[in-house]
Amino acid sequence: MRGLCLKIDGKMAKRIIKKVVKKEMKKEIVKKTINSGKNKIDGFFKAQNIAVIGAAREPNKIGHIILRNLMANKTVYPVNPNADEIMRLKCYKSVIDIEDKIDLAVIAVKSDLVPQVVIECGKKRIPRVVIISSGFDEIGRTDLSKKLKKALDKYGIAAIGPNCLGIYDSYNEFDGIFLPKQKVKRPEQGGISFISQSGALGATLLDMAAERKYGISKFISYGNAVNLNECDFLEYLVEDENTKVICMYIEQVKDGKRFVELAKRVSKIKPIIVFKGGVTEQGNKATLSHTGSLAGDAQIYQGIFKQTGLVQVDMLEDLFGVAKLFEKILNDKYKINGKRIQIITNGGGYGIISTDNIIKNEMTMAELSANTRKTFEKNLPGISIKNPIDLLGDTTNERYKLAISALLNENNVDMIMIVLLYQTPFLTEDIVDVLSEIDQSKKKPIVVVTSRSSYGNYTNITEKLADKGIVCFEFPEQAARAMGKVLGKIMNH
Amino acid sequence: MRGLCLKIDGKMAKRIIKKVVKKEMKKEIVKKTINSGKNKIDGFFKAQNIAVIGAAREPNKIGHIILRNLMANKTVYPVNPNADEIMRLKCYKSVIDIEDKIDLAVIAVKSDLVPQVVIECGKKRIPRVVIISSGFDEIGRTDLSKKLKKALDKYGIAAIGPNCLGIYDSYNEFDGIFLPKQKVKRPEQGGISFISQSGALGATLLDMAAERKYGISKFISYGNAVNLNECDFLEYLVEDENTKVICMYIEQVKDGKRFVELAKRVSKIKPIIVFKGGVTEQGNKATLSHTGSLAGDAQIYQGIFKQTGLVQVDMLEDLFGVAKLFEKILNDKYKINGKRIQIITNGGGYGIISTDNIIKNEMTMAELSANTRKTFEKNLPGISIKNPIDLLGDTTNERYKLAISALLNENNVDMIMIVLLYQTPFLTEDIVDVLSEIDQSKKKPIVVVTSRSSYGNYTNITEKLADKGIVCFEFPEQAARAMGKVLGKIMNH
Repeated sequence: MRGLCLKIDGKMAKRIIKKVVKKEMKKEIVKKTINSGKNKIDGFFKAQNIAVIGAAREPNKIGHIILRNLMANKTVYPVNPNADEIMRLKCYKSVIDIEDKIDLAVIAVKSDLVPQVVIECGKKRIPRVVIISSGFDEIGRTDLSKKLKKALDKYGIAAIGPNCLGIYDSYNEFDGIFLPKQKVKRPEQGGISFISQSGALGATLLDMAAERKYGISKFISYGNAVNLNECDFLEYLVEDENTKVICMYIEQVKDGKRFVELAKRVSKIKPIIVFKGGVTEQGNKATLSHTGSLAGDAQIYQGIFKQTGLVQVDMLEDLFGVAKLFEKILNDKYKINGKRIQIITNGGGYGIISTDNIIKNEMTMAELSANTRKTFEKNLPGISIKNPIDLLGDTTNERYKLAISALLNENNVDMIMIVLLYQTPFLTEDIVDVLSEIDQSKKKPIVVVTSRSSYGNYTNITEKLADKGIVCFEFPEQAARAMGKVLGKIMNH
Repeated sequence: MRGLCLKIDGKMAKRIIKKVVKKEMKKEIVKKTINSGKNKIDGFFKAQNIAVIGAAREPNKIGHIILRNLMANKTVYPVNPNADEIMRLKCYKSVIDIEDKIDLAVIAVKSDLVPQVVIECGKKRIPRVVIISSGFDEIGRTDLSKKLKKALDKYGIAAIGPNCLGIYDSYNEFDGIFLPKQKVKRPEQGGISFISQSGALGATLLDMAAERKYGISKFISYGNAVNLNECDFLEYLVEDENTKVICMYIEQVKDGKRFVELAKRVSKIKPIIVFKGGVTEQGNKATLSHTGSLAGDAQIYQGIFKQTGLVQVDMLEDLFGVAKLFEKILNDKYKINGKRIQIITNGGGYGIISTDNIIKNEMTMAELSANTRKTFEKNLPGISIKNPIDLLGDTTNERYKLAISALLNENNVDMIMIVLLYQTPFLTEDIVDVLSEIDQSKKKPIVVVTSRSSYGNYTNITEKLADKGIVCFEFPEQAARAMGKVLGKIMNH
């Protein structure tokens, strides 16, 4: 038998077995809890035959946009009592009239009509609905919410929404969000899944993710969460193999007890990055008229997030940056032993600001071993071996290559922060290949700080680096915040 | 006689006269102190005949780039003992050989040669030099610095640098920075002047300013400040009529006492926004090998900035954002009476985050008067009049127009924060004109939060808004930080 062999006595064996059994049992419990909602939600993304209730002819209407987006990849059945045909598809007066089996209905009718429409879905035995329509708790129409709930319960229908933007899945080519593609760019495939209580915020971040080349697996805008809520989606995403990191925008948690229990378990398996809206009294008040819920005390939430191992970010812009860095470290299977950062820069000022922010974000400055120092002295005479290492304004691509390469086997460095001020004269576009090769070697995680210059007609270096899968930030502060969050989570695990 | 007429008794008149005289005297003192350095520094930017010492033929060399940039608008005399002609210009072995009067020499030779070159400039009676060359205090060559100082003093030459990037002036068309235009975009004319101890940082921010359409008046990279330092530049810029707002990146202040005295006076006349590098012990340590100076205790600096009325920003990215907003308010002559903000949004989540950040940055949420509420009720039925006002995801350009217009004469609102999620379906490009018209009315300052989407092939709304002179931010956090800083300064004035 190959493998590790240890001599153990009876008592020790007993203890070990007990421990293992306990661990396995625990795993089982975790799995059971987590499994329960799996198929229910998976069915949303796997749906092939989809009814769009409230489908519209007018290109500007929600019921039109959603039909158009879905029909690109799915079999779609428009439902509208006032039309015979929409976009050359046969149109039905009611879902009940559809001949085929329907996996999912997307509902975009006036809120008053929603309960009745759901009842018809029930009669047609449609197992899942996404309710886009707004006009429920968020405008004080609790009566309508109650009616809707009753209808859903009666037929055992799983529902996302109401008052939401819809859902999106890059792997299943499911595009069920009601914003036109010429306004919201769809992100590429990737390991980040995003649950958002807010629709427009979700769409804006999705657009931003596409711009920044952050790959997205699933996006779920769940609005008022009258049926399925953030807990159900967490349970599902922890099992979803395309999801490596989970991002959340929440204002309020529907079921606190369940959330705490679940988050504790899930965050051990996949990192969860959370941004909370309504952290001030006034912001909290504003949540009521948004998704019809009060956000509660910010400090309580902060405590819950900490206790459950969630990573809370304080700025909206940090949400995906932290997630992207996490995804990179998980995908490339880096083993992180500490929070010791080496900075390499070609601008002294940026080096100083980076240092300030490494310290502010509770990381430490790496100290190089004698071996690495020797390599530096040999390969880069004239460059003083400090932290930050300043390659100076007259640096070349080659100097970056030599400097970073010298660090790749350095045990005293856990992550390299590369400041690349592309504005200096001797750097050329080939620096992208230099950095990509280093990144692809997967020897040490790197983070690049470089200012994007997208308005000019010259090389957009950020875009090119991002295309190669390199994690980039515009400012040292952003990079350091993300690094601090990621390393903090990994080291406390 | 037209004008205001008041009856006053003798005692009162005396008091008033005393006050006015005191004020005028104070002004005089301020002027005197500030005036001293005016012509000295103005001559740098007004220079017409410029010698480039260390001019080079090779397109990649600093001495070539600076020659090329300057010769576009000025009369340039290349100096290089090993060349007869560079870019079809006659080349001189030494400045002494130049037949014409020289206003300014830009020096880009090896540091060891700099003192001798300066002596030659002295002999040629050149009043001003910009020393680009590095290799002085920042690498421990204090001996060279001493020699350089001695030479400058002997001939009474005013010097910027060494170890700097050069200077730039959009109004005088003076482009004396050593980075090629295809790598660093030059910003348009505008009211922000920027003094930077760090060169590469300066260049990167200049590039960024151009990208974001922030107009720049003067840029001064002053490096080791062996002769002229930040105090001299402050003294100069307060008098410069093209400069409305002063931005500074500093690591260390050379003459603390003078700085405090001066900053106190200048900041009463023009706002000074400062970002300090080296605010942690480790960052501080790193400043030594950058510009050859220790940055000192961060808390002391923070105290000085506060005491002198400087606006300190904690993030590099905030430096120009704050400046831009300040410039706008000064240019459009808004009278600000408080920090009461009204938020208008088309995304509930963004509204909530904006609210959180208004509060975090020590502003308050405006409460609308009965009159304004009536206008809203009349013009925008169905939109609940709260703060934030949510125009909802189906908003149109018209709805924005009506909502903002209703606020322009509202006395309870000091600034309007407009969240514009362009991703929602019914907004069109014409929203730019809607907002521009409101902005141009100069009735109430507006700040727009909108995510840029520069990678797509669709409308880049941020760029279009910025082109119209509207102050834009990508995230609510950034906008609120800038608003908080600006309103804080104005209200404490």
